[in-house]
Amino acid sequence: MTEAVSRSVYFVSESTGITAEAYGQSLLSQFGDTKFIKRYTPFINTREKAQALASELGHRAEAEGQQAIVFATMVDEEINSILKQAQCHYFELFDRFMPELIEATGLQPTRKSGISHGLVNLDNYEARIDTINYALSNDDGMRLNKFDKADVILVGVSRSGKTPTCLYLALHFGMRAANYPITEEDFERGELPDELLKQSAKVFALTIEPERLAAIRELRRPESDYATLRRCYKEVQMAQDMFHRYGFTVLDSTTHSIEELASLIKKSL
Amino acid sequence: MTEAVSRSVYFVSESTGITAEAYGQSLLSQFGDTKFIKRYTPFINTREKAQALASELGHRAEAEGQQAIVFATMVDEEINSILKQAQCHYFELFDRFMPELIEATGLQPTRKSGISHGLVNLDNYEARIDTINYALSNDDGMRLNKFDKADVILVGVSRSGKTPTCLYLALHFGMRAANYPITEEDFERGELPDELLKQSAKVFALTIEPERLAAIRELRRPESDYATLRRCYKEVQMAQDMFHRYGFTVLDSTTHSIEELASLIKKSL
Repeated sequence: MTEAVSRSVYFVSESTGITAEAYGQSLLSQFGDTKFIKRYTPFINTREKAQALASELGHRAEAEGQQAIVFATMVDEEINSILKQAQCHYFELFDRFMPELIEATGLQPTRKSGISHGLVNLDNYEARIDTINYALSNDDGMRLNKFDKADVILVGVSRSGKTPTCLYLALHFGMRAANYPITEEDFERGELPDELLKQSAKVFALTIEPERLAAIRELRRPESDYATLRRCYKEVQMAQDMFHRYGFTVLDSTTHSIEELASLIKKSL
Repeated sequence: MTEAVSRSVYFVSESTGITAEAYGQSLLSQFGDTKFIKRYTPFINTREKAQALASELGHRAEAEGQQAIVFATMVDEEINSILKQAQCHYFELFDRFMPELIEATGLQPTRKSGISHGLVNLDNYEARIDTINYALSNDDGMRLNKFDKADVILVGVSRSGKTPTCLYLALHFGMRAANYPITEEDFERGELPDELLKQSAKVFALTIEPERLAAIRELRRPESDYATLRRCYKEVQMAQDMFHRYGFTVLDSTTHSIEELASLIKKSL
């Protein structure tokens, strides 16, 4: 096996470059030990910018003694062809899949850029912004009367991962995600509020290992009772008893990333 | 040209399916008029699940008289080969790019799934969660003393798009993004706070068309003075004068989506 060397990587697009980065990172994640030096170059949307980038790639290939790897999504054929001829290993999404996709669909592509992440459909876009605002304003369980508007409601103890997961559901999937933090008062009553239980079909419960929870809480409020392992253990245990009693679907944020939690929730609905 | 018919599309993965969805959506966005019925099937991570999905694809092809389009990222060769033989138009990311990428890098892939969006590197993951918490707790300009910890600070009038853009920067790019809403008081003083100006190299200003701003504010507080076109026009004008005076980079949230704003900001740093 050869020694791990560093490789230059570019994510290139006429628009945001979000797709180029997503598929490039996914492919690179398969080469664990290699050090990739990543450069992000969105908005390469004129011949001049493409030529400047091609020239940069040429210089880099000479200076580094090897060609950079370029992940790109280029809709404009002329700009694409400039980069295709540059000194680099060129991986372009549309080139690779379009011919076959045209054959499969029997349709012709529009070849317009910025459609997937731009302001193309204003109504859709405003609906997405609205979901983000919904997640932010229903983040603390204080507006129980808005729960009927939710697509999904996450419940869990403080710092179990509800907020980041809600934001991901809103930003990435356009879902109206509320959350309800279980409080001391709920534990004392031994019950969750009626407004929440009425929506129990939409509820997903998050659990977390007490050790991990204590570490997260310690960062937030060092040396507080709130962050003690004893208290975390007790809260997690009582919460799990409740989840079980109400028959909620329970997901574990100790072993799942927010993307995984969000994907599991989206899949389950 | 043939009439637009609906087509079934699947996003498939052993893990979250986020990459499969991103590249599939990007390709489909090039076929504007066609109606695609999209199904999201993450966590196809066993032979049994793959066989069940292959069988579903077979039934669908029969029922719909045409094969579904499948965008997939399948790391496991055995699972991949089950789907590859299913009755569908199969577009798989790794198959398509890996052989050439192996040649370009001279390295062998690990063929492990869930690396790009899973909990693989806990330190990295916690750093990302930390950026989300940072964005949330620095969302209202109330903690000026934390601005030195920011990677970027967005300024603009209320509802100009600062919060969703900050959250996107945090969630997608892992950047510590704070924001400062310009208040009535700032306009009266004719100045922004020193704590902000000290960090002016990190500041990006958001502007927005007054008509659009008024419409957004009207949704939030109907029939308020805050939502009048007169007031929006005045605030935007005064804010732009300030941005110009301080030499801030100004981005327009009327014409750019939050993804585009975030990409422009990331590129500029």
